[in-house]
Amino acid sequence: MPKEEQELRIIPVGGLGEIGKNMMAFEYGEDLLIVDCGVMFPESDMLGVDLVLPDFGYLLPKAERVRAIILTHGHEDHIGGLPYLLAHVRAPVYGSDLTLGLANVRLKEHGMASATTMHPVSSGDRLRLGPFDVEFFSVNHSIPEGLGLAIRTPVGLVVHSGDFKFDYTPVRGRGTDFAKLAALGGEGVHVLLADSTNADVPGFTPSERVVSEALDKVFREAPGRVIVVTFASLISRIQQVIDISLAHGRKVAITGYSMEKNTEIARELGYLTVPDGALVPITEIARLPDNQVTILATGSQGEPAAALARMAAGRHPQVSLRPGDTVVLSARPIPGNEELVNRTINKLFQRGANVITDQVLPVHVSGHAGQEEEKLLISLLRPRYFVPIHGELRHLHMHARLAQEMGIPRENIFVVENGYVLHFTRERAWVGERLPGGYVFVDGTGVGDIGPTVMKERAALAEAGVVAVAVLMEQRTGQVIGEPEIASRGFIYQPEFGSILENAAKVLLEDLRQSRPMGRGAIANRIRSCLARYFNEQTGRNPVILPLVLTCPA
Amino acid sequence: MPKEEQELRIIPVGGLGEIGKNMMAFEYGEDLLIVDCGVMFPESDMLGVDLVLPDFGYLLPKAERVRAIILTHGHEDHIGGLPYLLAHVRAPVYGSDLTLGLANVRLKEHGMASATTMHPVSSGDRLRLGPFDVEFFSVNHSIPEGLGLAIRTPVGLVVHSGDFKFDYTPVRGRGTDFAKLAALGGEGVHVLLADSTNADVPGFTPSERVVSEALDKVFREAPGRVIVVTFASLISRIQQVIDISLAHGRKVAITGYSMEKNTEIARELGYLTVPDGALVPITEIARLPDNQVTILATGSQGEPAAALARMAAGRHPQVSLRPGDTVVLSARPIPGNEELVNRTINKLFQRGANVITDQVLPVHVSGHAGQEEEKLLISLLRPRYFVPIHGELRHLHMHARLAQEMGIPRENIFVVENGYVLHFTRERAWVGERLPGGYVFVDGTGVGDIGPTVMKERAALAEAGVVAVAVLMEQRTGQVIGEPEIASRGFIYQPEFGSILENAAKVLLEDLRQSRPMGRGAIANRIRSCLARYFNEQTGRNPVILPLVLTCPA
Repeated sequence: MPKEEQELRIIPVGGLGEIGKNMMAFEYGEDLLIVDCGVMFPESDMLGVDLVLPDFGYLLPKAERVRAIILTHGHEDHIGGLPYLLAHVRAPVYGSDLTLGLANVRLKEHGMASATTMHPVSSGDRLRLGPFDVEFFSVNHSIPEGLGLAIRTPVGLVVHSGDFKFDYTPVRGRGTDFAKLAALGGEGVHVLLADSTNADVPGFTPSERVVSEALDKVFREAPGRVIVVTFASLISRIQQVIDISLAHGRKVAITGYSMEKNTEIARELGYLTVPDGALVPITEIARLPDNQVTILATGSQGEPAAALARMAAGRHPQVSLRPGDTVVLSARPIPGNEELVNRTINKLFQRGANVITDQVLPVHVSGHAGQEEEKLLISLLRPRYFVPIHGELRHLHMHARLAQEMGIPRENIFVVENGYVLHFTRERAWVGERLPGGYVFVDGTGVGDIGPTVMKERAALAEAGVVAVAVLMEQRTGQVIGEPEIASRGFIYQPEFGSILENAAKVLLEDLRQSRPMGRGAIANRIRSCLARYFNEQTGRNPVILPLVLTCPA
Repeated sequence: MPKEEQELRIIPVGGLGEIGKNMMAFEYGEDLLIVDCGVMFPESDMLGVDLVLPDFGYLLPKAERVRAIILTHGHEDHIGGLPYLLAHVRAPVYGSDLTLGLANVRLKEHGMASATTMHPVSSGDRLRLGPFDVEFFSVNHSIPEGLGLAIRTPVGLVVHSGDFKFDYTPVRGRGTDFAKLAALGGEGVHVLLADSTNADVPGFTPSERVVSEALDKVFREAPGRVIVVTFASLISRIQQVIDISLAHGRKVAITGYSMEKNTEIARELGYLTVPDGALVPITEIARLPDNQVTILATGSQGEPAAALARMAAGRHPQVSLRPGDTVVLSARPIPGNEELVNRTINKLFQRGANVITDQVLPVHVSGHAGQEEEKLLISLLRPRYFVPIHGELRHLHMHARLAQEMGIPRENIFVVENGYVLHFTRERAWVGERLPGGYVFVDGTGVGDIGPTVMKERAALAEAGVVAVAVLMEQRTGQVIGEPEIASRGFIYQPEFGSILENAAKVLLEDLRQSRPMGRGAIANRIRSCLARYFNEQTGRNPVILPLVLTCPA
């Protein structure tokens, strides 16, 4: 095969819902490059699941050939899966200082920090990684030091936007590198992989500066304490809150593990400027007058264990909310979390706090490009092929529609789900097969030991509870002897309605006595059908019935 | 006590989250009036619950003294609890034709239709109900024939807005009665109870006419079939879709039980105008060219059993989606349903359909007043006391803020949660005690037989599953004999990881053998603690452990 016809394969490997968000693989000949390795939080019907990982199955046989793992930025959905991947693929990791710092926290938790080679890179750096020539350029996002990638390959230049937005007046840091983008456009972009998260949002995402003005108004008018809740990774927002607090004569206390941890790392690495004496321990706030206190807290998604939900429930050890307090939700609920967040807001009002959301004032802006910014990126790069990534399928389709309006031919736009292999040569591009697998559940310490079957069982248990029934079978005759034992959970409120279970035991005994001697399997089936019928008649419900048949040695 | 000092009590009785939404009670002397009797759908952590009812506990001892049950409009959250209430309170029911028609469907399902006295009323009607003089006036909402109430009582005039919005150019029906509101304002309003649902939405809710224009654009441009999904009760929207379909030479097929049922009732009662030949059975659509077909379907909330989700999953018996189809989501996700709706939209795109949501075009408008309309209502009525209702606590607080900005003194505004008793005399008003109780779960045929304990058990089962263990105890010695039987659900994928359960049996047996003879309770506790430790070590999870101890008669 002539070298011209050798192909580049690009695969959005994982994970859940959003395409290419957690991991993408680039393959040329014998060499692989991995971009990002994140986790997703489970959807509401993934009962009991802690995390969702991309399925590494495709990579495992090729582990030796992975040249590098590149992290575009330090959010959990881009770095959180690293410890799980490094257990199988021992490749060097590249990313900005802050990204590697945050990734290192995860590695330490898994006892893997020392075994991993990490190489810090910055905007403008260029690396040769086998057939891939990777150049990093700065992009603006809701965490500092986001990097986009210009990957020069034998088939052409591939640009990966990372998570990005254009903010002409960023609060901190460099913002998206227009000059580099324009230069890449001039060089000729073969493939553009672009962030689609906000492809359904018209217009331009407002600058982070807008948030400063809104926060300033809040602080000016707040009669007492101000509690600001935001993402722990949104370092620039944390900086804004610290700066504005100082301007209004307030000291800042931080509460919530991830917020404490991230501000510590960001300070160490110089991404956060905190004057001496600006911070006070959360245990000291009671000594200050209310109008000299700002509290920076975790829990913007209504997470029950985080600082905000604990305050809302009256269970925070240091912060007891009272009239005069102002709570600022400087964040948006991630889709799926609306109910939890709204419930938390109700409770905050209940405790007398005033609550400011971004519906009242622009105290939050998105970290992702709106439609006009997506068009601007396409205009700057004018790619031959366009692949929308980082979004759910609906976002990808909307992004594709925009690209088409921008003049990219429909046949040069590839909307694919995770696992599909995209093939590119210098002349052609096509969608190949879909790899088997999808994503992998992490529950407790188990990785991949639960799946759809266990999920369905958990759903059935959640729906109507469980009734376990033990009976004793006489080995010799196969006949049930004695009384059955019954225990239930989540089925019915036993102190008041326990008689249903007592009657169930009688009905079952009657049913078993009427039947002929049977084997253990037959007895179990009989228990299941008898009780299923009885409980449904009595309650209209279908609890999970677990029969256990013991044999009597006598 | 002089008559002037006798008091009117107003109680937002139920139910879940939203205040006074499902039911309000008015009490004066010996007489009671009930306004609305609805159900709520459970929140996501109310596992297995079908419906949530207001708690009727307060009314039961006073059942004989209820003069009337008044229904403001025909939505489920205002009428769905009627069969449960009428089982205890046999009062006559008042409402508009359509409202009673829809309520009757529910009563028939409970075999109660014949036993209930229903009195149709219209805007302008006035009834004497004991000390209450109730006048009905028309309000615009997302279902025809919504009624507001002007209740003249010995302490003064109380206005209840019902669910409302001002639509200057309604598609059908009378719209909100400005003249009556202005007249009531002139008469002097003592208390205003006003819908707060959209108190967090700035501006004026656009007219339903806007939807007509958007739908017309969709129908003009759609290359194939158009599938419109909306609320089955949104009769005016259904009318719009039928009218626009006919204008574009399309016939309309209806799919989904509630949509079929509601259009039938609305046609019978004259709220829906359908020319002959406009409708075709869903089984006939295959005979028509795609661009002559409109499908009206249920499932706007992503409900898995509804028509839309079945189409999205490829499981609808008559409608197999394909490229060229246009799906219009003429509805908004109710908070909490976003994830399910978004997932459905992804699947629709996956099948090649084009999906139009209200982010793309204004194909939906809310049925509730925005902030400017709420201000308009207050301006027209100029009440002495203001009670925001129909919204979560956060909406009530925002509505209260608006009322204060409009000049109502803070001390005359009452933001309360469900169950608080508001007291009004001619001269004073205050918040009294909170009634015990809150809301009641309906699960299957059981009403109130499950509560927080059962919910917690279901949550634990959903989180990590269940392991049931049966052992045999020798009566004489109190010693465990034979092997334990173990069964699990939702804990671990047994075909691949079942060895954990086999080992658990061995570990348990070892543990029990090392222990001295014990009683049944002690054995059960020992099983629980031994297995809890073992499973947590092995998997990091905490399944519910159900020990069952049988005794051997020997």
